[in-house]
Order: sequence, then structure tokens, then C-alpha cells
Amino acid sequence: MNRNVETFIGCGCAYEQARIVLYGAPFDSTTSFRPGARFGSAAMRHESFGLETYSPYQRADLCDCAVFDSGDLELCFGDAQRALEDIRARAREILADGKLPLLLGGEHLVTLGAVRAAAEKYPDLHIIHFDAHADLRDEYLGAPLSHACVLRRCHDLLGDARIHQFCIRSGDREEWAFAEAGHTDLHPFDFTGLRQVVDGLRAAGTPVYLTVDLDCLDPSAFPGTGTPEAGGVTFLQLLEAVRTVCGARVVGADLTELAPMLDASGVSTAAACKVLRELLLALSAGR
Amino acid sequence: MNRNVETFIGCGCAYEQARIVLYGAPFDSTTSFRPGARFGSAAMRHESFGLETYSPYQRADLCDCAVFDSGDLELCFGDAQRALEDIRARAREILADGKLPLLLGGEHLVTLGAVRAAAEKYPDLHIIHFDAHADLRDEYLGAPLSHACVLRRCHDLLGDARIHQFCIRSGDREEWAFAEAGHTDLHPFDFTGLRQVVDGLRAAGTPVYLTVDLDCLDPSAFPGTGTPEAGGVTFLQLLEAVRTVCGARVVGADLTELAPMLDASGVSTAAACKVLRELLLALSAGR
Amino acid sequence: MNRNVETFIGCGCAYEQARIVLYGAPFDSTTSFRPGARFGSAAMRHESFGLETYSPYQRADLCDCAVFDSGDLELCFGDAQRALEDIRARAREILADGKLPLLLGGEHLVTLGAVRAAAEKYPDLHIIHFDAHADLRDEYLGAPLSHACVLRRCHDLLGDARIHQFCIRSGDREEWAFAEAGHTDLHPFDFTGLRQVVDGLRAAGTPVYLTVDLDCLDPSAFPGTGTPEAGGVTFLQLLEAVRTVCGARVVGADLTELAPMLDASGVSTAAACKVLRELLLALSAGR
Amino acid sequence: MNRNVETFIGCGCAYEQARIVLYGAPFDSTTSFRPGARFGSAAMRHESFGLETYSPYQRADLCDCAVFDSGDLELCFGDAQRALEDIRARAREILADGKLPLLLGGEHLVTLGAVRAAAEKYPDLHIIHFDAHADLRDEYLGAPLSHACVLRRCHDLLGDARIHQFCIRSGDREEWAFAEAGHTDLHPFDFTGLRQVVDGLRAAGTPVYLTVDLDCLDPSAFPGTGTPEAGGVTFLQLLEAVRTVCGARVVGADLTELAPMLDASGVSTAAACKVLRELLLALSAGR
Amino acid sequence: MNRNVETFIGCGCAYEQARIVLYGAPFDSTTSFRPGARFGSAAMRHESFGLETYSPYQRADLCDCAVFDSGDLELCFGDAQRALEDIRARAREILADGKLPLLLGGEHLVTLGAVRAAAEKYPDLHIIHFDAHADLRDEYLGAPLSHACVLRRCHDLLGDARIHQFCIRSGDREEWAFAEAGHTDLHPFDFTGLRQVVDGLRAAGTPVYLTVDLDCLDPSAFPGTGTPEAGGVTFLQLLEAVRTVCGARVVGADLTELAPMLDASGVSTAAACKVLRELLLALSAGR
Amino acid sequence: MNRNVETFIGCGCAYEQARIVLYGAPFDSTTSFRPGARFGSAAMRHESFGLETYSPYQRADLCDCAVFDSGDLELCFGDAQRALEDIRARAREILADGKLPLLLGGEHLVTLGAVRAAAEKYPDLHIIHFDAHADLRDEYLGAPLSHACVLRRCHDLLGDARIHQFCIRSGDREEWAFAEAGHTDLHPFDFTGLRQVVDGLRAAGTPVYLTVDLDCLDPSAFPGTGTPEAGGVTFLQLLEAVRTVCGARVVGADLTELAPMLDASGVSTAAACKVLRELLLALSAGR
Repeated sequence: MNRNVETFIGCGCAYEQARIVLYGAPFDSTTSFRPGARFGSAAMRHESFGLETYSPYQRADLCDCAVFDSGDLELCFGDAQRALEDIRARAREILADGKLPLLLGGEHLVTLGAVRAAAEKYPDLHIIHFDAHADLRDEYLGAPLSHACVLRRCHDLLGDARIHQFCIRSGDREEWAFAEAGHTDLHPFDFTGLRQVVDGLRAAGTPVYLTVDLDCLDPSAFPGTGTPEAGGVTFLQLLEAVRTVCGARVVGADLTELAPMLDASGVSTAAACKVLRELLLALSAGR
Repeated sequence: MNRNVETFIGCGCAYEQARIVLYGAPFDSTTSFRPGARFGSAAMRHESFGLETYSPYQRADLCDCAVFDSGDLELCFGDAQRALEDIRARAREILADGKLPLLLGGEHLVTLGAVRAAAEKYPDLHIIHFDAHADLRDEYLGAPLSHACVLRRCHDLLGDARIHQFCIRSGDREEWAFAEAGHTDLHPFDFTGLRQVVDGLRAAGTPVYLTVDLDCLDPSAFPGTGTPEAGGVTFLQLLEAVRTVCGARVVGADLTELAPMLDASGVSTAAACKVLRELLLALSAGR
Repeated sequence: MNRNVETFIGCGCAYEQARIVLYGAPFDSTTSFRPGARFGSAAMRHESFGLETYSPYQRADLCDCAVFDSGDLELCFGDAQRALEDIRARAREILADGKLPLLLGGEHLVTLGAVRAAAEKYPDLHIIHFDAHADLRDEYLGAPLSHACVLRRCHDLLGDARIHQFCIRSGDREEWAFAEAGHTDLHPFDFTGLRQVVDGLRAAGTPVYLTVDLDCLDPSAFPGTGTPEAGGVTFLQLLEAVRTVCGARVVGADLTELAPMLDASGVSTAAACKVLRELLLALSAGR
Repeated sequence: MNRNVETFIGCGCAYEQARIVLYGAPFDSTTSFRPGARFGSAAMRHESFGLETYSPYQRADLCDCAVFDSGDLELCFGDAQRALEDIRARAREILADGKLPLLLGGEHLVTLGAVRAAAEKYPDLHIIHFDAHADLRDEYLGAPLSHACVLRRCHDLLGDARIHQFCIRSGDREEWAFAEAGHTDLHPFDFTGLRQVVDGLRAAGTPVYLTVDLDCLDPSAFPGTGTPEAGGVTFLQLLEAVRTVCGARVVGADLTELAPMLDASGVSTAAACKVLRELLLALSAGR
Repeated sequence: MNRNVETFIGCGCAYEQARIVLYGAPFDSTTSFRPGARFGSAAMRHESFGLETYSPYQRADLCDCAVFDSGDLELCFGDAQRALEDIRARAREILADGKLPLLLGGEHLVTLGAVRAAAEKYPDLHIIHFDAHADLRDEYLGAPLSHACVLRRCHDLLGDARIHQFCIRSGDREEWAFAEAGHTDLHPFDFTGLRQVVDGLRAAGTPVYLTVDLDCLDPSAFPGTGTPEAGGVTFLQLLEAVRTVCGARVVGADLTELAPMLDASGVSTAAACKVLRELLLALSAGR
Repeated sequence: MNRNVETFIGCGCAYEQARIVLYGAPFDSTTSFRPGARFGSAAMRHESFGLETYSPYQRADLCDCAVFDSGDLELCFGDAQRALEDIRARAREILADGKLPLLLGGEHLVTLGAVRAAAEKYPDLHIIHFDAHADLRDEYLGAPLSHACVLRRCHDLLGDARIHQFCIRSGDREEWAFAEAGHTDLHPFDFTGLRQVVDGLRAAGTPVYLTVDLDCLDPSAFPGTGTPEAGGVTFLQLLEAVRTVCGARVVGADLTELAPMLDASGVSTAAACKVLRELLLALSAGR
């Protein structure tokens, strides 16, 4: 008789054979408005059984990919630096084994742990960032390690013109000024310009980290998130954008900011699962 | 003093004068993921009083149509074959009286009872099927009578090329292969090709059964359903498609898979009511 | 130590310096279907802290505008005439001080109090009305003062061709006939014709009252309202329409029919807050 | 084929044979805090099918009683006086036919309409009142016709020492003083003294109207109400109290203040249904 | 790196060493009123991490017990006989290995599968049954295999005076008559008589199956169940009763009818977890 | 025209005249299970308007007390030490002005900030602690500053036998051993022994800090909290205990762990408001 195992649907590969490794970071301590993103990764696993493994969009089946789901890290609530260290350690281990780490949040701050590990291995790393919010504050309510600062901290690490932001429709005046000063490559509102950015990165063989804050989606498609921002992209636009990015050399990725309790209908979790399926298929096709 | 009567708004015609008869099938025993469709038909009646009987889309009023609402059948939970027999008996009775049976689900399996009755009377019956899911599995978790198999069972009855499927965006590999082998006429994702199909059927005078799984709608418009699938059609696209189909010789119809408890905002039930109003008006205009 | 003050974000101007004054009318006694709009104004203030004061759409910051938030009126439940008198008195006071009154509902009937005050000061007032419902009934369930009659009561006051209605997609047969007889200028379904209307009013220097029933939005974007009507406009279309109207000489405005308890995800309240921010910015730019 | 009828379970008697007549008043326009009691009566009918008709407490079956369910009145929202007139007219009609009117609220103000009709027929009427709130304000937010004033209005009609209040645990200072001055017979917190009161009324053959605001129950047993007050009685205490009162000569009764949307678990509606079953059985046993 | 495992907290023993084996039956197809019990077992595992493994009631720690959690069976929806067969097979396997099977529902019908297995091994089996409902119908809506019939089916198997029912407060007239005729040993409303029954069974060394329908609890303590019945026992009374029963020779047990979606507060799931912890500790102490 | 002020009902005293000062700490970053206590203080203010200021339990009116509500602190999420410093600073300021600081949480960790300030001024401080959980862990998930450790940190500060714990029914084995070793004075399950403890403290004139984790209440009365523990005290028991404690020399107090989003019925917030009213009245009576 077997012990009860819970993984994302279709991710039954053994670690040794896997090319992609899922790991969850159930952390949302710096969320300032409405918490709950800590439950995102577990909800995605649990609800993934309402999803088919076959994608009619890519005509491919998740069962043919080599994905291992290592479950959720056990993180320290209330101490962001410690939590980020644990995330970095896990990402580093996966990268060291030659596999692609795919992080499931959690709030967006968790990305910083994974990016630190990726930038160690790939010093020329670029980031492609889908989000409603610029996340470029230098500090937020006194804290430099906050979901509202995560891309600013990545900029500290990588420097100018290495972060390509899309769908951004919220930020304070200083964040917009920071981006417009050329520190990041910010594309407001939608995915305009994404194909050109990806073409350039692919041509140069640049390693890319893809970070998706799911609130880039319009709240009508994805209400279950801490800070919903009306005026976002559609689900089908996001799927196409994800496939576009996978044309480049993606070395790490994440999906963040699903807060399943905030959407009792379950639609947001189901959408997140489908984005993850499509991302896994597109990453697998490209490797 | 009168006893309390509850019907869908504007459906106050006597049975004898009625041209369309509503009947509900509050059944969801084979629902594998999230149950609740059993409450769909009662919720539609109850919430219909938030709706006007007049449609600015068709410039017509439900009060001018001849519709009788016979309420819900009392079905046996946990025994799908018995439930289907009871549905078939009711549909047969309505058809025998020369009226159009319009079934309110319940889960999608209930359609099979109604289609069996319609196919008895109209051996050359075709089905037009709007759905997110192909529903073409040969069995599901060991059961041949499952919501996931309902169109496959209809295919058993009608044979190849008699089922026209639209908006399909989910299914396992075998279902897609079954459709692509020509057993059904599957149009993925949206209503592309619908007008041509309807034109052909109308020209031939073919009797048509219209089955609408409301999850063909995008979850943003219709979150209250057991298995929401992102990437669906809009409400206005569905209204237009319904009117288009009513250009053919429709002899039976259904709306299924509203699970009202899954959408506490009531938006899904309100949308379902409006689809029903528009369907009743379009069917009435065509008769 | 300061007492606890709660205002809409960024509305910290003193009354004397303010050019726009917010006032709330937490009233929904005539709501016939699903109540809860009484909580709309308080929810908008409370949840506004999830919003930025800076708008990337207008490249402007609410902190640079001169807005005073006077909180909610304390209104009598169950006596509509009294409540409307109190609303009129507050609007009259704001107008007398040369400021623009911006009313936060509450149900749509509250508009009548504000329009009465505005029409006193501006006898040539026109109304621009965004709504899913025509609200042109002469009485509803026996009451002439009902949310379903509010624009009819405004018509009693202003006469023919002074009310410009947009996005209307629901009403009974008599309401549509009333509008089509030329009593109001009704544009069904969307904002078609808005720019021409505004251009005409601007050219003539006509004073305009803008009343926004937020259920003009599609329920996918705004489920939290008493009577959701599928088939509405998108959030971005509404933002553009609001900016368009502010090109005319707007002398009063309102946002109504947010019922926050009906949308537990908070998306509707967040959308309403963003519409208010954009309206305040556009009104400020135009003054 | 029969039209769809919805009555409270087991209330299938014809009007002519009935000894008790149910009538609903879906009204809550004066509710100042959280509305929703308008949905109470319909929810009780709808959810009654989760209940057995047999009571092990009284060893009796509702199917053996003679109860007719006349459904809900269609009342004018926003005009309390009109709504009360319609309720009085219905109660008067039932009383004139020699039957016992049993009113399902709605907010507590609806009781006034029924009490007016009962006091016409029985000038020596007494009221037994179960409630968390004294409801003795002379006016509330300017309105004399408010749920918070309903027993004060009854006092206007009946005079001193005719109203027996139980379970009261909330009221302003003036209300407590009014009761303590002997205008009503107020028993705070629980049912202490009920049996003596009932014994006295029975001995005298005094006609009694029983009004039950279901918020007399502790919120743990009955959370679904507009103004929950911790510290109430248990469900079994209420059942016993209801049976006790039915030892007197009850000529009219009501159950009010179920607001089903406020308790998504359905427990409150289920409890209200069971109180109604037990009340109907006890009234039937006593007649 | 390890695969993600999800078990009830503190149940980390290997199968070979285990004395108690948990197995889940996520089935609710015959639920006639409000479904959702299918999610009970998974919710208990998931939410158990809010619980301590140490019990101050028994001064013992779950970590010291030998419990293996084998996860949920994959059952066929819509075919009750098949589902019961699969449950019986699993229970038989656990019993054959000399361990105690502890079943987590699911609806109450699942008990029948486990009882069939236990009665095979222990022909002199008695059942102790905690429930709000008698569950003694001979058939329900035409089905003999229904949650409303489960104890009647057990009676078919075991015969008269072998089933001891407690807390029963709901049933139709025939069920009460059936019990009162001596077919079962029914104790209404609470646990009166339990100790005597247990003392007798212990003295005789009789094997006992304990089936707990969690709706024996009052809905104030346990709202998250399909058919809540006011007037139940308290949580502490249930804990004591569970410990009392474990004084006898318990050879199998179950907890059923948690429907977690019906109680969004999570209180019901938390209570169920605590009952399970206390049951596991009491069973372990007795072995 | 006045700015919108939001305070707890009846707390309209000026700061200078106040004897009690409310201050809120909307912080829950270390909550490990289900967050949301950050919204507790704001919800209490907002919902307090459903409450009367008069208490029939104490026959006193909040309007006669001298309470100032200073609103919520703006705290840093994700940095517990900084948040505690800000809380300590506010408490110190209130104490320095000779007033009693009454803190509204937030999670239970916030108590540590207030206790640090109180212990500075009153080195002989004792704590009376009502809670379901012992909160005596030395660290939790690696963090010494966690809600699960808050009383242990207080013990670090105050030493043995200065903390009197009541209602405790959850903790790991080490926490129980720590208390049983005499480090704290732990009374399990209920308020047994409270009167004796208070009598002793009053006789000695000892300054007392009262910390109430509202989850000491049974979840049936108070479901809206992060970690509900069945088997708690009733609301009326808590009221009596609060009044008992106020017989001693209370110099500071708090109410924590209301998570209003977890109880959509609003019952938990209403109960918390009533506990606060009774606490304020009892504290005022004693001063």
C-alpha cells in the first residue's frame, strides 16, 4: 500500500530523469494589502486534477514531458531574508543538477531567491517580467525586502536594461520615473514589443528568467489575487506570450500571486493551472 | 388564495397552448470534480425575476411567447440509468404532444435522456453542441454513463458526422483523435464554421437538437460551473450563436452545467437566465 | 495623537481649497432584487488603499488634485423622499461654495437628490447616463421613487432630449418605447455616439451632470452589483468614456450601484476605486 | 403536466380545509445595518426539502396538519406604510376565514401589519415577543416605521403591560427605561418567567400573538441575520419555549429576520425551517 | 529530492509497522440535498497542519501512535455498487494484515463497504452509530443504496439488536417505527445510555465497528455538512463519547459527512481533524 | 464640512480627557496557518455601528466612558522586530500620559510590543492570558518572534509565575511541560481558578496586563480566527471573566486574532465588538 502523494497533474517523472523541477514557496509575509498567496502552490497541485494533461493549443501532452514536483519548501514566516535564502538554496541545487527550476509562489518577493541563484550560474541573465505592478519601489513601509520592491532588488543585482517588463499598469510616480530613466525596459499595459525583445535575446543566446505575476491577467479572468488591477491582458494573450518567451533560452521561471481563498469560485486556480501546463509544455518543446 | 407557483419569468402559458415546454433535471451524480449542477434549474427559475422579459437584442418579449414551465423532475441520485429513463419519458411526452422540450440541467449527462427521446421521433437527428469539453470519452473512472462521455453515447446512437461541436478546448488525447478521425465534426475554441453548418442543415430541413454546456462561455463571464476552462467565448458571441442555430429546424434543446453555489456573486445564474430568455425568443420566432 | 480619519486615498485637501467634494449616500431601500449598495461608498474608501494615486493612463497623480472627502451622509432607511432631501441639501451646499459635488452611492435613486440640486443652479442642465438599465419606469411595484424610475424622475425635471443614455441593454417594453419616442437620447449596448454628444455639449458650453451606474460594466469586470446584466462594456472602454465626458463642462457627477458584499473577491470594489481615481483626475484636468 | 409549485414541505392542504395559512413578506427596506431578510421566506420554502416532516420532539408529522402556503406578497420597496397595509390586508383576510395567519418575514417591521389585523379582531390581544433587541425606539434615523421601533408601534396600539418580551439583550438606554417603567413586560437574556406568563394568559383565555425574531437565538446557532447579538438562547431552548407558548390561545404568529445570504453554510435557514415545523406542529396540536 | 507526500499530521508510520490504517473514500453521488462530502478526506489531511499532534485531553501524542495514511481511493462516480466494492476490497486488505481500517468519508453510504468487510471477518460484529439521522430508510428516491439507507443495509447484513444508534434526531415516521420495533437500539438526541452499551459489549468481548456521521454534532460546532440538523451534541460530548467507545473492542471505524466547501470558515474541517486525532489516540491507547 | 472620521462606537472623547486609548496593530506577518488578523481592528471599528453603546449586562453606557480611538498604526510587513518597536513606542506614549493603552490586533505577537512598554513602567507586572493556545514555543519555523512564541517571549521578560494562562487547550508536548514545570500558571480548558488569581493580585495591588486571544472562545461563537480550536468557552463565560479581571489593577490590555475575512457571516466581528464594549465598560467602572 502506498503513501499518499500529491503532485501537479502529469508531473510523475523521477527526479533523475526530470528536465524541469517544480518547487513551491508558500510565503506571503510582506504582502501589504490582502494576504493568501501562501496557499497558491498547494491549491494548484490540488485543483490540477480538474485539468487535462493534453493541450489542444500546443497539441502536446504533459505526460510526455519530464517534470518532477518536489512539493513546497517549509519557510519561516515573518523573516523574509531567511525565506529567500531557503528558496535560493533549492534553486541552486536544481540548477546544479542541470535542470530548470520552476518556482510556484507565494507572493512575488519569492522570485528574488530564485533570481539570485540563476544570476550566480548565468551572470548575463535577463529577466522577462509579466505583471500589473512595476514592483520597482526602493522600499515599502520601511522594508527593502517587499513584494513591492522585488524587481528593484533584481535590478540591484543585474543592473540597467536587463529587465523587460510587460503589462505594467500600476506604480507610484517614482517607479515610472525609474523605468523611464532607462533602468528597466518597461512596456505598459500589454505585450506590445515582446516578440522583438525575445527575438533579440534568442539571437544572442542570452539566458532568460521568466517571472509571471499572474495579476498581469485582467481581474475578470483572475480575481484571486491580493491586489487586482482592472485593465489587464486576457488569458489567451498570456498563453501566447508564454509560448513566445519559450522561444528564447529560458533557464528559470516562476508563477506567483495566486491567492486562492480570494476567489471562492475556483476560476483563478484553474486558470493558473492551465498557464502552468502551457508553460511546462512550451519549456519542454524548447529543450 | 392561490398556492405559491414558481416558474421561469414570463413562462405563464397553459400547457395546452404552449409551443415550448421547460423541464428541469436536477442531477449531478456523475460529476467527478465539483458537484452542484443539480441546483442549476431551480436557481434559474428563482433568479429569473431579476431579468426583464423584453429583449433589446431581438426586440421581442417573452410574454408574447407560448412557454410552459413544468418544473423539475424528481430523479434518483446515484443511479444514472434510472435518471436518464425518467428524463427520456418526460421528453417523449412533450414531443408526442407536438411541443419542443427544453431541458434545464443538471450536469451534461442529462442530455442523453433527451437525445434518446428526440432520436426516436427524428431518426435523422443532428446535434449542435456548444461546450468547453469534448465529452467523447468511452468511459470515465469505469463508468460509461458519465458527464465526460455524454456526446460519445450520443454518437453510439446517431453515428458518424451527425454531431457538430463548437468551442471545444479540453479533452484527452484519445478524444481529440476520435473527433479528428471524422466521428464528430469538431470546431475547436470558438464558433468558427457555425453559420455554414446551420445553413446546410436548414437547407436540408434536418431536425436539430441544440445542447449548450454553459461552460463554453469564458469563466470570466460564467464562473459558476464545475470545471471552468479559461479561454472561452464571450456572452455576446454565445447569444449570436444561439440565434444562428435557431435558423435551423430545432426540435429539442438544453442548457446544462450551471452550478450556482460555485458563484456566490450570482453573475453566472443571471447570465444563464439571459441565455435562456434569448433562446426561448429565438426558438419562438422560428416556429 | 490624532483621531482616526478615513478618506478615499489621495483626497487629503482641506475643504476650503478643494475644487471637488466627495460625499457618500449609503442608501438602498428601494432596491428590489439584491440589496447591498448601501455599503458601496464605505467600501471604496476602505479599499482605496490598495490603489496607487498615480495614473499611467493620464500620467497624473491624485495627490496633485484638490479633493475633499466629506464622508457619508446619515440617511433614513425606508423613507426615500427624506433621504433624497438630505442628499439634495448636501449637494446644494457644495455647489453654493463653487465646488463640484461627486456623489458615491448607494443605489441609483440617490442621483435624483443630486440632480435636483444641480438643476436648481443650472436650469439648462443635461445628463449623461451610463447604465445597463434604462431606469425609465414611471413607477415600480407601486413606487414612483425607485431605483428603476430614477431617470424618469430626472426627465420629469428636465424634459425631453436632455438625457443622453449609453450602454443600455435592459428595460421593459414601455421604457424602450418611451426613449424611442424621443423623450431621451438612448444609445443601446455601448458608447457609440458619445463623442458626438460631448462635442455638441462642449461647443454649447452646456452644464453636464454625469451619472455612472457601474453596472454598465460587463459583470465579468464588475460582478458586485445588485442586478448584473451580461453583455456590458469593458473597464478600459469605461475609462475612455469617462475621460471623453470630462471634455465637456461637468458640474456634478456620481458613481452608484457597487454592492461590495456580492463580490467577495474584492475585484468590483477595486474596479470602482480605479474608475473614481480616473474620474477625479479627468475632472481636475478639465477645471 | 403540472405547473411548478413551491411550498414549505408538508404544507399541501387546500385553502378551504386549512387551519393555518402561511404568508410571506419579503421586505427589509428599513433594515439599517445589513439587509437580506427579504430573502428569508423564499429560502425557508426552498430549503425545507432537507427537513423531515416528522418530529421526534413532538412525535407528530406535519403531513397530518392542515396548513396552506399562500406564498409571498409582492410588496413595495422603499414605502413602509404601503407594505404594512398589504400585509394587514392579507392577515385580515385569513383571520376573517377563521384561520390562523402565520407570517414569514422579512425584517421585523412586517409584524406590525399582522398585529394591526389581529388587534382589530381581538381587541384584548397580548403579544409574546422573542428577540435579542427590545425594538422599542420611538423613531430610528428619523423614521417611526422601522424595524427598531416595531414593538413600540405595537405598544401604541395595545397599551401598557400587553407585550411580554423575552431574550432581550440589546437596546439603547431609553428603551430599557421605557420597559422598566412598566410599559412592557421585559424579561432580559432568556426565557425566565415564560411559563408563568403563559399560564396566566391561558387561564384568562387571552388571545396571543407570538412574534419570533429569530435573532433571539445565539449567533452560533443562527448566524444568518442582520444584527447578530452574542449571548442568546440555544435552539433547544427556543423549541421548548415555542411549545410552551402554544399552550395559550395563539391567534397569529410570525418568524422574522432570517437573512439567508449572510450564512452561506445554510445552517441558519435549516434552523429556521425546523423552528417553523415545530411551531406548526405545536399550533396544530393546540387547535 | 523527495516527491511531495500529503498525509494526516503525525501519521508517518510505515505500513508494515502500522496498527491503524487511514483510507479515504471521496464519494457523495447519492447525496440528495447538498453534495460536497467527497472533499472531506482531502480537506482533513490538508488542514491537519493547523493542529497539534499532542492532546491535552488524553495527555498523549499522535507521533507515538502507529498510523499509516494510504490516501484516497479513486472511486467511480454515479455507480454506488462499484464504489462500495472498491471500499470493501481496501478494508478487507487492511483487516487481513491485522490492522484496524479507519475510513474517512465521503458521504455516509461509504460505511457499508467497510462494514461488509468487517462483518466477513467478525460475524458477531456490532455497530455503534453516532448520527443526527436514523439512515434506516428501505429505499430513497428509488435507490436502496443511498446515504439515507446505509444503516438499514447494515441491518440487512447483521440483523436485529446489533446496531446501537445515538444522537438521532431526524427520520421519517417509518424509520422511527422500525427502530422502535426493536430492529435497532436507537437512543434519541444524545449519548444517553452509551456507557451501558459499551460496558456490555466490552464484557462480552464483542467486536465493534464505530461509525461517526459528524452531523451528530450541533451545526453551531459543525456547519460544514450536507444536511445540518439543529439540536445536536457538543464537541466535548462527542470527544468523551469517542473515548468511551474505545473502551470496547473496536475493529473498524469511520468519520463521514464533512463537506468542507459548505463551511468557508474552516471550523468544521478543524473540528473533524481534532475528532480524528482523539479517535486515533483513544484507539491506540486501547490496543 | 467635516472630514470623515471612523472610530469605535461611543469612543468620541478628546485625547486629553481620555482615560483609555485604543490603538490598532494591523499586523499578521508571522501567522503560519491562515492570515487575516491584520484586518481585525479596522473591522471592529467599522462594524461597531451595529452595536448599542448601552450594556444591559453592566447597566452602563459607553458614551459615559472616556475613551479615545487613535486608529491603526502603519506597520512594516515582513519585519516583526520593527513592527514591535512601533507598537511599544505608541504604548509607551499612552502610558506616559497616564492613560490605559488598549491594543486591538492583529495577530497575537503584537502583544509583545505592548507588554514591553508596560513592563518598563511596571516592573512587577503580571499577565492574565486568555487563549486556546499556550503560545510558549521557544521558536517556530526558525523564528523566535512568532505568534506561537509570544507568551514565551513575555516570560523571558517577566520570569516565572508571572503569567496566568486560562482556557488553554492546544500546544505541543514541550509547551505543556514548560508550563507544568512552573514557569507559567496554566489553567487548561476554561476559567477555573480565575477568581482566586484575581483576588490575590488585587489584594497585592499588582499591576496586571490582560491579553485576550479571542480564539479562547469556542469556534461556534467565534469562527473568524486563524487557528480555530474546538472545545472553547462560551461568550457569556468570557464576558464574566473579563469583568472579573477588571476587579484587579489593570494597566494595559489587548484583544487579538480576529480575522474577519474568515467569517463571512460577520458574527465573529460582532462578538469581538461586544467583548470590547464590555471590557471598556468594566475598565472604566474600575478606574
